[in-house]
Order: sequence, then C-alpha cells, then structure tokens
Amino acid sequence: MTTFDTVPLELEPRAQDLLFREARTANSFTGEPVTDGQLRAIYDLLRWAPTSANTQPLRIVAIRGEDAKARLMPLLDERNRAKTESAPITLLLAADREFDEHLPRLMPYAPEARAMFADPRLRATAADYNATLQAGYTILAVRAAGLAAGPMLGFDHAGVDAEFFPDGRHHAVLVMNVGKPGPGAWYDRLPRLEYDEVVSVL
Amino acid sequence: MTTFDTVPLELEPRAQDLLFREARTANSFTGEPVTDGQLRAIYDLLRWAPTSANTQPLRIVAIRGEDAKARLMPLLDERNRAKTESAPITLLLAADREFDEHLPRLMPYAPEARAMFADPRLRATAADYNATLQAGYTILAVRAAGLAAGPMLGFDHAGVDAEFFPDGRHHAVLVMNVGKPGPGAWYDRLPRLEYDEVVSVL
Repeated sequence: MTTFDTVPLELEPRAQDLLFREARTANSFTGEPVTDGQLRAIYDLLRWAPTSANTQPLRIVAIRGEDAKARLMPLLDERNRAKTESAPITLLLAADREFDEHLPRLMPYAPEARAMFADPRLRATAADYNATLQAGYTILAVRAAGLAAGPMLGFDHAGVDAEFFPDGRHHAVLVMNVGKPGPGAWYDRLPRLEYDEVVSVL
Repeated sequence: MTTFDTVPLELEPRAQDLLFREARTANSFTGEPVTDGQLRAIYDLLRWAPTSANTQPLRIVAIRGEDAKARLMPLLDERNRAKTESAPITLLLAADREFDEHLPRLMPYAPEARAMFADPRLRATAADYNATLQAGYTILAVRAAGLAAGPMLGFDHAGVDAEFFPDGRHHAVLVMNVGKPGPGAWYDRLPRLEYDEVVSVL
C-alpha cells in the first residue's frame, strides 16, 4: 500500500500497520474483557501527545457495567446499538470546559495562561478542539494496545452530556467501543483521497 | 515513564517513544529541507486513520517558498514568528467544508450519505471536527517520518483563510512547522494529568 515516490518512514512497517494501514474500525467484538491495566496503559501513552497550551481537556468515562450500558444504549443511534452491545467496554470521550482550573499546575512557567481562557465561549471552543485532537490520539493508542477501536458520532450529544456529565462542565466529543474484533467486524476498506487532492506546496 | 499497574502495549517501545513519549513540540529547526517525498510519505500514512463517514475533510497547504512564507508571517502571533522563520516547511491544515462533493466516491455503499450533510452549518461542524481529528493524526505521522512537529494555534484564523483559501470553502484548524529540531528546540517537558484525574470506569 506504499504510494509511488514516497521515502521510507522512521516508524517501523509493523507499527505503521498496527496504528494506520491495517487497523480498521471494528463493528463487532468478542466477549474478551478490556482490563483496567489496559485502560491505564492506553492513557499512559495518549497523554504524552500534545494539546495547545498543554490544556489536556479530555476526560474519559469507560462504560463497562450492565447498568451503565443500559443508560447509554437509548442515547445511541439505532445503527450503533448492536455493536455497542457486543463491546466489552465503551469509552465516552468528553471535553472538560473548565480545564483551566488545572493550568497553574500544567503550565507552571506561564502563570498568566489561565487568564487567556477567562471567556467561557472561547474556553468551550478550546476544550472541544483539544479534546477532539486527543480523541484522535486515543483511537491510535487503543490500537497500540492491540485492541480495535469503534469510534461513533451517531449519538445524542445533549443526552449523553445530561446522563453521564450532569455537572454541566463536560461535553461529549466521541463515543468509542473498544475490544477484540468479533465475527464480521470489518466492512470493506473505504477509499482514501490521493495526495494531489489533499496536499499542495507553495 | 511507565505508569504503575499498566500492561505491556502491542506497539514496540521504540515506536511509543518516537510517536508519544520522547517526541516533543519543536520551537526551532535546522535548515535541512523537508522533501516532497517526505510529505507524500507522511500523507500516505495519516490518510488511513479514520474520519466519521469517511469524510476526510483535511486539506494541507505546505508553505516552503519565500514568497508564501512572507504572506504567512504577519498572520502569526508574534511569539510564533521566529520559530516559523527557522522551519523549512510550515503546513496549513484546513477543513474543506464542501468535502461532501467527494462522498459518492468515498462512501460508495451509502449513496444517501451526501444528503446527511446538506445543511451548511452541520457540514461546517463536521468538516472542522474531522479535520481536527486528522490534524492529530498529522502530528503523529510527521513524527513517524522522523521529523519534529511544531503545532501552533496562535494565528489569525480569518486572515489565514482569506490569504490562502480565498475560495471561501476552507477553514484553517492548525498551523504546524515541520523539520529537524534546531538549537534550543525543546522547552521543559510539561506535566500530564494522572490516570485517575482523567479516566473513570462505570
């Protein structure tokens, strides 16, 4: 799947396949559990990837228990329910729009950083933006753990916020099943845009 | 830097370091050029990572020439100018808010997909969201090429859109220097939130 006229990457081909080339969005899962140790390892990788002003607004609620799953299910689009039923764990990825309370610790050399986010609208935009960057990192970190990710945007965003983040300061940016791929997990590989359609050089 | 109570990842430690643990945002660069072959290799990796409904709205304008750089420089916050002067190439990452024109090809099994994005406001939101996910993938793909990324949000967004995307359909989501790290490229490593501050399990 190497494109004409590229040069070799520093990243080993096996890692390229694991994270990008061979990895696929899974649409069914086996019953094999995802352990707390795996969740810790995933977080311990993704947390090093960058966010603007080191804001790190991503918060994760991992849905594993039957009660929690029953609360989530009606908030998913119907087409996403069967696959989520099969998943051993489902991650709710949310932006903490009051991330700025941690900034004195996260940006110790810039004590004025917190004041940059005094405006709640700008703060919400920064939270959602950086949590979305971190959602992308999370997909790749799940794959780095040898697990399949099934990210989904088809859910009731306001409903998930109200049900799982009643403090009003969090906003869900992605829901993602995680586990070992089950029977019929893969749809056909969808096409990607070509380099010349995406990149131009000035 | 392994956290207590994690399990080994499938991804090799060297690749973990290259993409996540040892990689750092660079704040100066050597003069060594970034070639078209490297840009192609970076795109050929990042393009495989997922977007919702396979929308792939990310478009990249790579600023290499002196004329283009001179147009960009006044649109950057002052603190971002010296590092950008030193970078052999600067990527403007933008969302194509009319990405839907490609959907009949990108989602061939769902001919109704394009109609889902008929509303321009919803389409802009989907474009910006997915291009931001792809911006995260791009940071990691640049690192996969053995290069340092210097992502920046401190720029005049409307100004960059007007100067480099006058068709009005694109919206810049990130500006990123790319190259080999130069003298004094690294600030101190900033702290990251702990697992228990970010993840909860239900």
